[in-house]
Amino acid sequence: MTFDASCLKYDGAGLIPAIIQDTDTNIVLMMAYMNKEALEKTLATGETWFWSRSRQKLWHKGETSGNVQKVQEITYDCDRDTLLVKVKQTGAACHEGYYTCFHYRINPETGQTEVIGEQQFNPEEVYGPK
Amino acid sequence: MTFDASCLKYDGAGLIPAIIQDTDTNIVLMMAYMNKEALEKTLATGETWFWSRSRQKLWHKGETSGNVQKVQEITYDCDRDTLLVKVKQTGAACHEGYYTCFHYRINPETGQTEVIGEQQFNPEEVYGPK
Repeated sequence: MTFDASCLKYDGAGLIPAIIQDTDTNIVLMMAYMNKEALEKTLATGETWFWSRSRQKLWHKGETSGNVQKVQEITYDCDRDTLLVKVKQTGAACHEGYYTCFHYRINPETGQTEVIGEQQFNPEEVYGPK
Repeated sequence: MTFDASCLKYDGAGLIPAIIQDTDTNIVLMMAYMNKEALEKTLATGETWFWSRSRQKLWHKGETSGNVQKVQEITYDCDRDTLLVKVKQTGAACHEGYYTCFHYRINPETGQTEVIGEQQFNPEEVYGPK
């Protein structure tokens, strides 16, 4: 029996935010948006699919970079309007070459933003020149 | 010097999603929305403030329940449109009495939703009868 994805709450554009967390390290890797079809493809394939708001199309994470995410667990919250997806991450999650997309830290003392973590790949080598 | 919260990307309603993660256990506790003012109050007070979309007002997490969140670190992602806030959680985060709001697990074998975790308080005792 398959999960009825229509029991969740989608926003006016038919989207639900999905937080992606590394199942081994518990690092939060990224947040992206799924529509009902993306969630169904994620459940069916065991890898993450999203709806790209900028490109207006379904997007299989890792389709260009090879950095796919193998789904280990999907939970949703008490309001049924956010997903938390635990994954095994291949390579690095961020298109800027960092392991996590959350690599800009606000320093509350200085008011400045600091980059944390190490770049693991050169985006131009993976995605081509901008 | 204070952080310039206007450098982030807010949606059409002036909101940015904020993922809240427990700094000790790395459990993702909840997701809620901040506007610029809520983020500034969070930075100034060291406790989380959000914009309640249902009540259309600023909301200090824990103001009713006492389950406040002490901010340890704030990062944002490569698109500058999502915040990740690491906190020390007092009590339990979810208004349903669970430690995390993400306590509904999709079982991909059965298609059913299973509740995970233990209820830590009775919501009616904290918030009053529904």
